[in-house]
Amino acid sequence: MSKMTLYFATGNASKVREIKAILQELPLTIVQVDAKGEEIQSDFLEEIANESAYRASNNRKLPLFVEDSGLFIDALRGFPGPYTSYVFKTIGLSGVLSLMQGVDRRRAVFCSVVSFCRPEGKPVSFVGEAMGRIAISARGNNGFGFDPIFEPEEGDGRTFAEMKMVEKNSVSHRTKAVCAFAKWYLELGIR
Amino acid sequence: MSKMTLYFATGNASKVREIKAILQELPLTIVQVDAKGEEIQSDFLEEIANESAYRASNNRKLPLFVEDSGLFIDALRGFPGPYTSYVFKTIGLSGVLSLMQGVDRRRAVFCSVVSFCRPEGKPVSFVGEAMGRIAISARGNNGFGFDPIFEPEEGDGRTFAEMKMVEKNSVSHRTKAVCAFAKWYLELGIR
Repeated sequence: MSKMTLYFATGNASKVREIKAILQELPLTIVQVDAKGEEIQSDFLEEIANESAYRASNNRKLPLFVEDSGLFIDALRGFPGPYTSYVFKTIGLSGVLSLMQGVDRRRAVFCSVVSFCRPEGKPVSFVGEAMGRIAISARGNNGFGFDPIFEPEEGDGRTFAEMKMVEKNSVSHRTKAVCAFAKWYLELGIR
Repeated sequence: MSKMTLYFATGNASKVREIKAILQELPLTIVQVDAKGEEIQSDFLEEIANESAYRASNNRKLPLFVEDSGLFIDALRGFPGPYTSYVFKTIGLSGVLSLMQGVDRRRAVFCSVVSFCRPEGKPVSFVGEAMGRIAISARGNNGFGFDPIFEPEEGDGRTFAEMKMVEKNSVSHRTKAVCAFAKWYLELGIR
């Protein structure tokens, strides 16, 4: 079966690596195209992802997808949510841990939204979630972003950053969204 | 002298009140028009404000201005910066105070950018800054947002929220940006 090309608009090399690993057994070739300055501000990841996909696809005259993800911490009213990467590069792991110091309610959700759009088309989105808890301290060196402080529920207590990529990918929010998208895309291709 | 109408695109009633007070002695009438969902994500307030002004002005077919502001805390690498209002409604004053607990370096800058745009024109922007420090605890009930934890340098140690509006407006970042804009706008009108 010949491979289909899928354009992925992102500036994040770690996401490219992870998504390539998630999709490696499928007849899809991921080609990264650069994306910058095209995210809107919104409390809703899906709205951000759809708008980004729409703009990137129309700017580049290519069908493509984007992936946006965020860590939503219950006790912090969803913070850092849609601004997870900004918060990571400013206050970082230690900032979020200090906001959670002495807090018993440690429930959090990692969300991923994949949005696919063709030029002049309407974006279509796919959502994945991983429930979990915020660790007391950062553990592990794998993954990226807030992985060292997130213990997924579907796991054995290790953080995402303590897991091998293949283990993280078996339970991650990103895998759920990306696989739902890939399934839809391949079915579409067959029609 | 007859008054000139100035359209201000915002959803924030406190900003409208404050800007009307700042401009009250000038021959300008501020008319609020609603703005929503038109902010982009960027590390630069000026880029966000220009893009918002451009879009709002083209969507509404009106010359108008927007005002965007943010609190940039040195010790937190500029956090909460462009996402100040999101951070305010999630982790709030107490969250920022806890991030600053035990931190000696308390320097911060409140920045304001006013951006004016005509339909199909290019946005023009004006920047104002107020240097200051992050207080150890929240004090005062005036103002809005992070005012209770910001002690401006041009002051007597009180926070913005402990000042009367007229006192805050005599030293605020917003006054500097708004007045620079109003001066430019009025000169333009005379030509």
